[in-house]
Amino acid sequence: MHSLDSFFKPRGIAVVGASADHAKPGNAILRRLVEMGFKGGIYPVNPREKEIMKLRCYSSVVDVDGVVDLVVLLLPAQRAVEAARDIAERAAQVGDAKAVICVSGGFKELGTEEGVERERKLTDTLKEAGVRLIGPNCLGIIDTYSRVTTNFDVGNYPAGGLSIITQSGALATSLLFWALRYRRIGLSKFISLGNMADVDIVEVLNYLGEDENTRVIALYLEGIENPRRLFQTAQQVTPRKPVVMLKAGKSELGSKAAKSHTGALTGPDILYTIACRQTGVIRAESLLDFYETLHALEKQPIPRGNRVFILTHIGGPGTLCLDEIGRTENLDMAVITEKAREEIRRMIAPTATFCRPEGYIDVTASHTEELHNKILKVLFNEENVDAVIQIMAPSRFLSERLMAENVVDAYENAGRKHGKTFLNVITYSDSASECKMILEEKGLPTFDTPEIAVKVLSTMVNYRLQVEKLKDRYNKLYPLNPSNKFTKFRERAEKAGRKHLLEPEAYELLRNIGIQVPKYTIIRNAGEAEGVGDVLDFPVVVKVVSPHVIHKTDVGGVVTGVSSVGEVVKAVEVISRNVAAKVSGVGIDGFLVQEMVRSRIELSVGAVRDEYFGPVVEFGLGGLFIEALRDVSFRLAPLTLEDALDMIRETKAYNLLTSRRLGIGIKVDKLAELIVGVGELIAGEEWIKEIDLNPVMPVEDGFVAVDGRVIIQ
Amino acid sequence: MHSLDSFFKPRGIAVVGASADHAKPGNAILRRLVEMGFKGGIYPVNPREKEIMKLRCYSSVVDVDGVVDLVVLLLPAQRAVEAARDIAERAAQVGDAKAVICVSGGFKELGTEEGVERERKLTDTLKEAGVRLIGPNCLGIIDTYSRVTTNFDVGNYPAGGLSIITQSGALATSLLFWALRYRRIGLSKFISLGNMADVDIVEVLNYLGEDENTRVIALYLEGIENPRRLFQTAQQVTPRKPVVMLKAGKSELGSKAAKSHTGALTGPDILYTIACRQTGVIRAESLLDFYETLHALEKQPIPRGNRVFILTHIGGPGTLCLDEIGRTENLDMAVITEKAREEIRRMIAPTATFCRPEGYIDVTASHTEELHNKILKVLFNEENVDAVIQIMAPSRFLSERLMAENVVDAYENAGRKHGKTFLNVITYSDSASECKMILEEKGLPTFDTPEIAVKVLSTMVNYRLQVEKLKDRYNKLYPLNPSNKFTKFRERAEKAGRKHLLEPEAYELLRNIGIQVPKYTIIRNAGEAEGVGDVLDFPVVVKVVSPHVIHKTDVGGVVTGVSSVGEVVKAVEVISRNVAAKVSGVGIDGFLVQEMVRSRIELSVGAVRDEYFGPVVEFGLGGLFIEALRDVSFRLAPLTLEDALDMIRETKAYNLLTSRRLGIGIKVDKLAELIVGVGELIAGEEWIKEIDLNPVMPVEDGFVAVDGRVIIQ
Repeated sequence: MHSLDSFFKPRGIAVVGASADHAKPGNAILRRLVEMGFKGGIYPVNPREKEIMKLRCYSSVVDVDGVVDLVVLLLPAQRAVEAARDIAERAAQVGDAKAVICVSGGFKELGTEEGVERERKLTDTLKEAGVRLIGPNCLGIIDTYSRVTTNFDVGNYPAGGLSIITQSGALATSLLFWALRYRRIGLSKFISLGNMADVDIVEVLNYLGEDENTRVIALYLEGIENPRRLFQTAQQVTPRKPVVMLKAGKSELGSKAAKSHTGALTGPDILYTIACRQTGVIRAESLLDFYETLHALEKQPIPRGNRVFILTHIGGPGTLCLDEIGRTENLDMAVITEKAREEIRRMIAPTATFCRPEGYIDVTASHTEELHNKILKVLFNEENVDAVIQIMAPSRFLSERLMAENVVDAYENAGRKHGKTFLNVITYSDSASECKMILEEKGLPTFDTPEIAVKVLSTMVNYRLQVEKLKDRYNKLYPLNPSNKFTKFRERAEKAGRKHLLEPEAYELLRNIGIQVPKYTIIRNAGEAEGVGDVLDFPVVVKVVSPHVIHKTDVGGVVTGVSSVGEVVKAVEVISRNVAAKVSGVGIDGFLVQEMVRSRIELSVGAVRDEYFGPVVEFGLGGLFIEALRDVSFRLAPLTLEDALDMIRETKAYNLLTSRRLGIGIKVDKLAELIVGVGELIAGEEWIKEIDLNPVMPVEDGFVAVDGRVIIQ
Repeated sequence: MHSLDSFFKPRGIAVVGASADHAKPGNAILRRLVEMGFKGGIYPVNPREKEIMKLRCYSSVVDVDGVVDLVVLLLPAQRAVEAARDIAERAAQVGDAKAVICVSGGFKELGTEEGVERERKLTDTLKEAGVRLIGPNCLGIIDTYSRVTTNFDVGNYPAGGLSIITQSGALATSLLFWALRYRRIGLSKFISLGNMADVDIVEVLNYLGEDENTRVIALYLEGIENPRRLFQTAQQVTPRKPVVMLKAGKSELGSKAAKSHTGALTGPDILYTIACRQTGVIRAESLLDFYETLHALEKQPIPRGNRVFILTHIGGPGTLCLDEIGRTENLDMAVITEKAREEIRRMIAPTATFCRPEGYIDVTASHTEELHNKILKVLFNEENVDAVIQIMAPSRFLSERLMAENVVDAYENAGRKHGKTFLNVITYSDSASECKMILEEKGLPTFDTPEIAVKVLSTMVNYRLQVEKLKDRYNKLYPLNPSNKFTKFRERAEKAGRKHLLEPEAYELLRNIGIQVPKYTIIRNAGEAEGVGDVLDFPVVVKVVSPHVIHKTDVGGVVTGVSSVGEVVKAVEVISRNVAAKVSGVGIDGFLVQEMVRSRIELSVGAVRDEYFGPVVEFGLGGLFIEALRDVSFRLAPLTLEDALDMIRETKAYNLLTSRRLGIGIKVDKLAELIVGVGELIAGEEWIKEIDLNPVMPVEDGFVAVDGRVIIQ
């Protein structure tokens, strides 16, 4: 038995803080439990009452004489802590009471020391007794199958396949109420986790992954300490069932200025988007997108392919629907067979718009209640159609009910059998409530506008593609396996009191993992310039090597286009003067002289160790353009070659690399290998904080890092 | 009297094609007219009936013995053409019947010759008789003030300030039905224009601009022949009332490949967006955005500024609301006075989230029905607050009605007086229908999600800014005033059989309008290379000059970095060889030798004459990057200096021009002047089809066009 089963399949529930007052949550919860028809024991606990709602009331949880698997705590914070001791006592004596949901607030979320301390006490008391805790400061759970609820707002809710994990009770409750009138969504489990003092999102996600009543998982996130762990769990779940995430904190209000700051580039939010992409999690863009994506996923199958047919009887919204499909990257219009064309052509008026463009029929004024039924059946029987979007606006001349029933009949008799995805747009919204209601009740989701239906369909198709990639172990979020093979580099630097590698050290490290760097040599002073011509071809670049200089260009520490020994001497003098002028008391170890690489394409490959997500790689245009154009893509490291290729393709740099004029002979694969190498380096070497190769340039046999910076943790 | 008044203020209406059959539109229209309580005469015309709905029925419109200002035609197409002759006859004899709405389809929209011919006959017959026509193939009009309707689906609709002009009757009807249940929108006029054989969008837009019952105009467009005319009219209207446009045709389905084609860059859709920006028209992004923007604009005042306060009692949606505000470019959180802080702090529980961040209060569990009233009043009385977004999810412990009434009271007694914009988010949607209904009926729009409310508010604030710019004659769409001062350039080219200017001619033209070009000279052959050093400084660039070569680089017609007379000779030889090899039988007029300009920044400024919009200018990154990065902005020409500055700011090129490293000494104003010049050139010279200056580079005293191409119409 899973330790969370006590929450979802309790034999008995004690409600500590039960109340006889209808205006109190401690009463509402009891009412909802009764409303739900929970079959196990319900035990109100309140020392001041004898009976509530005809249920015997106990003065302490210790006194309850039935089996208590789950205890709901509704007391003010301080008293909840005291009650936890009773629960611990009971757990020790009776051996049940293994699960507590603490609904009460007044803990860590207050942001006060007192609150934090209170939460620590609550948690410690229960943990020592081996009792699991959901909350505090939450709405707890609903399970429509085992008929449990601790949510005082929601009781008997239509059962279905959606389970919700949420860090905001009200948000998830909103979803349920939004869906309720038209029965848009059927619920399996609702889990409001509050402060997550014990049971956390990762554990619940894992549990729901195995839950047979759960077909779709919704996840509302506000903040989480170890997102990488969450996504490593998610990637185990997504191939079996969709996980849809809505995350707050996309922008940082009050510090708008920070948005344009470079640091924001690797800021956490974009990493959530990336992690979703790497693990097949669907990221909702807004609350409505969250609602409607879940709406479609709970009711309809994932499309088997990306070919969509539009059947409309109103022109304007039909045109908008086509438009939106044209703007998606993954949907195509379905091309039906000649046989189907013939059949449909015979059904419709000659004035109807027929397969102009392919995959589109606008029957307009010629439609009847039955016509949709007949056309839909033909479409559902077509091999070449994966999904149908129907657009309706019930006319005053037709029966809304008859029309809806005909549509349902077509799906029941042809669509469902062939696994077609069927979405309906009803642009009249509430003014066609009968039609909406009939369709929704029969498992056909309806949407107010064509754009929403197309967005949802595109998300569904994309989910399928992502998950197929995951199955092939492509695009997967790999676990970190630090090998720390190159710690000698850190040791050497730290011995010299540096938190970064000198550039020659960085070059050496890069060469160790197979990344090309320019041919170079090191001279200590102008006197050694003479030998440069023997080992390098001119022109060369001369750079300062100093433990005190990280940003060489900023202090005038770089001279390019140096074309003779004499010029090397001059460059060394210029650099020495510049550095001395800019930074006082700086020691110069020497000068790195490297062959000059020329290309019109300058790229950058970098990596950072994010505070939350760990190692992350970054790719984009480099050189002077990186700051201005912000053309970058990210992946959590380590990553696969396919990941790296995707990263490259996501940027506009890809257009340069493959352009008719500039891209001749450029081997994008080699660039992907370089990115994979950088990802493995930062994932494998825990002492590295940051890697920055900028610019990276294409050369005949691959790519070369012309400048390398490695910062130590 | 305006000629359109006969449609909207008719003394009597004849319905030709009236029917006794309830299932026919010819019956429905009569019923809707009666339902509306139209006070003028209603005259059914149908030779087979004596009476319909107790109204005397006439066998021809000629026979009607009352005043007929408006005739509605509901007959099949061919018979409608015949009936038009009767109308013309009546117009001549009786002198009324000056307006016809032809609802019937079967005309030009069929795409057949027959249909086109029929429409021509209908139109000619009426035009000759001085009768105006709306349609054919439309739903006609509704006017809730004069109580007229020809829309068989909609009769008695709540009156208000919105007027709709639409090219799809069903789409606009959808908007009305979407809004109906919660009375989201009050209607003034509905105008479905169909094929626009006579009365068109521009005329109606002008009319509505003057209509005192119309406060907001909605416009649904599918295609229009002269969009520039439309936008020139729109810019007269937008400073007085908002115009919201939804346009189909954002993507070109069936030719996805074409999207990535260069031609698509100046394709029409982006020009609609640009034209909206230049004229203050609000462009809706989707049908829902269209609905909700109109919803807010019809009910609430335009915010006086951009400072918004969020009051919520649910945390999750509150956080999402903040997030969304952080992502807009124009909204700021309101900072309230110390006095208001004190007042509110005394009202709320210490656990509430208070002004963290500024402009945000989450009262969460501590709220009561009255609390919102009290806090709202304080906020509405604050000078520093321009708009309030309130987020509600009526709890089971509070009365939905009482809560709603308290909110309404606060607005009635403080918000309205101070001209505050007030938007409510009710995340429970239909599960809080009582609350929604009360607010909507009192003029307070409600939205299902915070993101929608923020989007709408941001649109409203942006409208105000755009319109203020228009008032200052900044950002305005100027009329074309062709001067054709430089037609001698065309004459010279055409005499030589060319459809383009030779580069030296283009340079001359550019210099004429004050655009810098590099110092250059022309040599006819290698023999003339000797003199180059006398007039130009090395290094130079050598380019072929030939009537047959437009894309010089593609045929090897350019050599850069030429640093001596000897190298000029070599360059001339290489170019001659290249061109001869690539293009057979090409004559070379000579060689343009110009001083080489060096910069890491390459820009492009261009102009085209769009088939629909006329002259358009384009700005972006140039050189090799233009194709890869697609970083371009557009404006209709001619344009102002401020327009040009906006164009520059919209691109990432702006980041380069102002970057710490590259932007030193760059004068962006000078670039804007250059863009304005190009805009005036194409607007003023009707013979120019296309101008392409690429690259344009920054030099010490401004910008220089290093390459110039001018194509003739």
